[in-house]
Amino acid sequence: MHIWRVNVGNQTMSRTPVPKYWQELGGRGLIARILLDEVPPTCEPLGPLNKVVYSPGLLVGHGLSSCDRISVGAKSPLTRGIKESNAGGTTGYQMTSLGIKALIIEGEPQDNHWWLLHISNEGFKFEPADDLVGLGVYQTARVLLNRYGPKIAISIIGPGGEMQLPTAGILNLDKDQTPSRINARGGIGAVLGSKKIKAIIINGNQGKKPPIAHPEDFKKAQKEFTQALMTHPQTAIYRDYGTAAIAGMSNSLGGLPTRNFSQGQFEGIDTINGERLREVLLKRGGKSNPSHACMAGCTIRCSNVFADENGDEVVSPLEYETIGLLGSNLGIDNLDWIARLNYEVNDLGLDSIEVGAALGIAAEAGLFLFGDAEKAFELIKGIRMGTPLGLLIGNGASWTGKTLGVQRIPTVKNQAISAYDPRAIKGTGVTYATSPQGADHTAGLTIRAKVDHTNPVGQVALSRNAQLNNAGYDTLGVCVFASFGFAAIPTAIRGLLNARYDWRVSQNILQELGRKTIELEREFNRGAGFAAEDDRIPKWMTKEPLEPTNAVFDVPENELDEIFF
Amino acid sequence: MHIWRVNVGNQTMSRTPVPKYWQELGGRGLIARILLDEVPPTCEPLGPLNKVVYSPGLLVGHGLSSCDRISVGAKSPLTRGIKESNAGGTTGYQMTSLGIKALIIEGEPQDNHWWLLHISNEGFKFEPADDLVGLGVYQTARVLLNRYGPKIAISIIGPGGEMQLPTAGILNLDKDQTPSRINARGGIGAVLGSKKIKAIIINGNQGKKPPIAHPEDFKKAQKEFTQALMTHPQTAIYRDYGTAAIAGMSNSLGGLPTRNFSQGQFEGIDTINGERLREVLLKRGGKSNPSHACMAGCTIRCSNVFADENGDEVVSPLEYETIGLLGSNLGIDNLDWIARLNYEVNDLGLDSIEVGAALGIAAEAGLFLFGDAEKAFELIKGIRMGTPLGLLIGNGASWTGKTLGVQRIPTVKNQAISAYDPRAIKGTGVTYATSPQGADHTAGLTIRAKVDHTNPVGQVALSRNAQLNNAGYDTLGVCVFASFGFAAIPTAIRGLLNARYDWRVSQNILQELGRKTIELEREFNRGAGFAAEDDRIPKWMTKEPLEPTNAVFDVPENELDEIFF
Repeated sequence: MHIWRVNVGNQTMSRTPVPKYWQELGGRGLIARILLDEVPPTCEPLGPLNKVVYSPGLLVGHGLSSCDRISVGAKSPLTRGIKESNAGGTTGYQMTSLGIKALIIEGEPQDNHWWLLHISNEGFKFEPADDLVGLGVYQTARVLLNRYGPKIAISIIGPGGEMQLPTAGILNLDKDQTPSRINARGGIGAVLGSKKIKAIIINGNQGKKPPIAHPEDFKKAQKEFTQALMTHPQTAIYRDYGTAAIAGMSNSLGGLPTRNFSQGQFEGIDTINGERLREVLLKRGGKSNPSHACMAGCTIRCSNVFADENGDEVVSPLEYETIGLLGSNLGIDNLDWIARLNYEVNDLGLDSIEVGAALGIAAEAGLFLFGDAEKAFELIKGIRMGTPLGLLIGNGASWTGKTLGVQRIPTVKNQAISAYDPRAIKGTGVTYATSPQGADHTAGLTIRAKVDHTNPVGQVALSRNAQLNNAGYDTLGVCVFASFGFAAIPTAIRGLLNARYDWRVSQNILQELGRKTIELEREFNRGAGFAAEDDRIPKWMTKEPLEPTNAVFDVPENELDEIFF
Repeated sequence: MHIWRVNVGNQTMSRTPVPKYWQELGGRGLIARILLDEVPPTCEPLGPLNKVVYSPGLLVGHGLSSCDRISVGAKSPLTRGIKESNAGGTTGYQMTSLGIKALIIEGEPQDNHWWLLHISNEGFKFEPADDLVGLGVYQTARVLLNRYGPKIAISIIGPGGEMQLPTAGILNLDKDQTPSRINARGGIGAVLGSKKIKAIIINGNQGKKPPIAHPEDFKKAQKEFTQALMTHPQTAIYRDYGTAAIAGMSNSLGGLPTRNFSQGQFEGIDTINGERLREVLLKRGGKSNPSHACMAGCTIRCSNVFADENGDEVVSPLEYETIGLLGSNLGIDNLDWIARLNYEVNDLGLDSIEVGAALGIAAEAGLFLFGDAEKAFELIKGIRMGTPLGLLIGNGASWTGKTLGVQRIPTVKNQAISAYDPRAIKGTGVTYATSPQGADHTAGLTIRAKVDHTNPVGQVALSRNAQLNNAGYDTLGVCVFASFGFAAIPTAIRGLLNARYDWRVSQNILQELGRKTIELEREFNRGAGFAAEDDRIPKWMTKEPLEPTNAVFDVPENELDEIFF
């Protein structure tokens, strides 16, 4: 494995050995290490000193079920702190096949031309991409697949990334060549845009699987893990209902964001929950598919394909977070409309959570009526056209709220809270407040814990445990849904790592990696000027009760401050 | 003299002796000291931990010509660093008559009601102000003068301050009861708005002049200073042409902001310069007045009253910075339109520099055509109505530019550059870059120095000297135009201070006060996370030549970094 480094200024690259203290990390953890080592925390996120780092996690490259994710990170133009965002699809696997431990994209573009970065066994080349400027993600993918053949992996920014909007992500192909797997959060697509890279073509087909020090041990651990995962009841739920399975639970706990987080239950829940989604998909047939895998070899298949009444694909996948933020949060109770909004946001290459939260604020400010999907659609189209209102939304929830003078802004560190209201699901609220990543459920979701989620007692410990686990999984390249398998076989991660790398790690390695990662991230954020008062749920959520639980966020601040000590 | 402290939460106040180490400062310098002592530099500017500090300068209260200014400061919601902004009018004099060394307004309002803060010899009281909400500055002043009599001083926020826009200032009555003297920059009106104070009524009529330790010495120094000021040729220029006198000079040096700082000369200069302004005012008669004093006893009278063709007052005063930013910077060559725009901005209680710069960016983004004053007027009215575009403009130049994706944003530390392009007037550019106050010509204007303003050599020393002087004047409460008098009589400031306070300060006291002040301010900003890279002119101005001089800003960064060492 090597560190691949590309300078967009003089278009040179280097391939160097991995420094010893970088070897023990991968994915999110390695990104933290590299950013701390190489990027001044106070730098301008869209300026020449920031870097985009791709890093597959430590377990990527073997086709382990749900373990081939790609982490991408940078200093975030949204939070102005550290950012890592990971995605499924084929990018992680193919990068690992090329022996890439991390790909670091750095430097300052010399002019305004756009480029493709093509990487393969032969090294790298820059190819002109001015012909792709302004194209949506889907069309860009079609052009590139046509040009380079169907077996490549691609990582693409949309018009939003080109415009350097802090809501812009990076989209990767899934195993069926749809550019649907998004490194969504924190605006890293804008950072790639600031480097004038429209897409990265990764051809790992002449590459090879990474070496395994003890193949028999690896195979044994893999088998145990896979069986545990396949037979876990949660796997069946995600296969049948996708992430939308959680909509009903979130609603019943009173934590489903509704009309800009003004309520925790949505009267239209029955028309947008996982059960309805599955029913619609099964009835429509055609391209519809309720159980779709984003990565080869995934046994969970939480993804789906949403088709219209004619069976033609609208969007893939339609996920819970999008249903929450572009659905109930906007008062929209129609899956077809939510799917259309989702497609449009994806095609622009934007984070549907952030855009949904911004639209919720816009509705509260009176720019459109809650429930008016057509007007929401127009506002999203305005982003593409560069209208002032479109650009306002495209700058995210905090920006929209501050501009329009809305007091009820659901963000932490300027990043939108996702589809679990922190007042009703307090452990996840603790995660939103204290994660160095800003408000992000993937940093430590607690909704499945068997606790009273409105009771503030014990939520910090619950969140800490979830955050350490998730930072560990993100460093391994493991999808959080694989955790059901790893939790059942506590020796599996240690077994896989020791077999793969000839290491002697302990059974606690998951949390050790997680702690290391979070410590590095917090160090970066301190350097960027973050302090205790940034680790807070928005004040109005500590005062304004949420129907129907009437909960406020009341986990004590001193407990938040001590979560990682 | 005492420290008056008002808590808006429980509506209590205290009057305490001045701590010894606060006694030697006043105005801007004392504000820096107090903010450092009491406000966490990292706090939210519109949150409960920020404070609004009023402080008259060290020489205020004696009716010395042009020496009764009031400084107001806070952590800025615009720059997120330290902010002091001073103004003429009657507030400084009347506060000093009440023995106020500093008025500190702190705490968190308990509810959404608005208040008047009434201070007099009898102490203070809060009076309801909900009836004034939404009223413009001019109407508010009329109501309050009617209610409290004509002899009071008033300090008012407009609808912009109520909306907590970071472009909002605070307006003070001039000697003729017009609320025209604005603490304009950095959004301190928003901070006062966050405390729910609509206006401060200062009744100093039962007060008394501050004691003078050595009256004869004071009188002698005062006489020398006044005579020097009265006979200085520059005084006559400002009396005849006001600050607009500088428009022609700025244009001929190629430093007049034109169409969002894309050019340094304006083809319509002859219709908006000081000569034309005087001609129009003399011709129109009626309320027109080219030589108006903002403070009692001012011998310069740089202010003016602009009347329409019927002789009815449109706005007072019409100043150079406004002519530059709302005129040439928008391609508007009509003084009547500029005066109307100015009135509207004043009535909203906003900074005309910041609003003008934001409008320039909006024009560049295509929201209206340069030169279309009617459309600019509509956008400003949109601020009052709270339209999304209006609010965008009301959030200032950086915000507007970032939202609309405009690359050419003329700001430093998020604050708009005023009417001297830093490429053509490089010493002032150094001031913009390095002043802890953000881009602000009043922190150290260099245009009158007899140097080649496009030559980068020597500009740092020129700016340093100007910055130290100005920080000194701001600490004394002295209008910068009085400097012509003080420069002619180098012993005058020492004489006045030693006579007033029984001190033994040196002849270098002006720069000593200035250095002390700037050091305190830089300490605050370091605590707020500012670093060397914040002390920079926008990068595009270092690359894009400015017609007709074709100058770029090329003062070396290492020189900027060492300006105060």
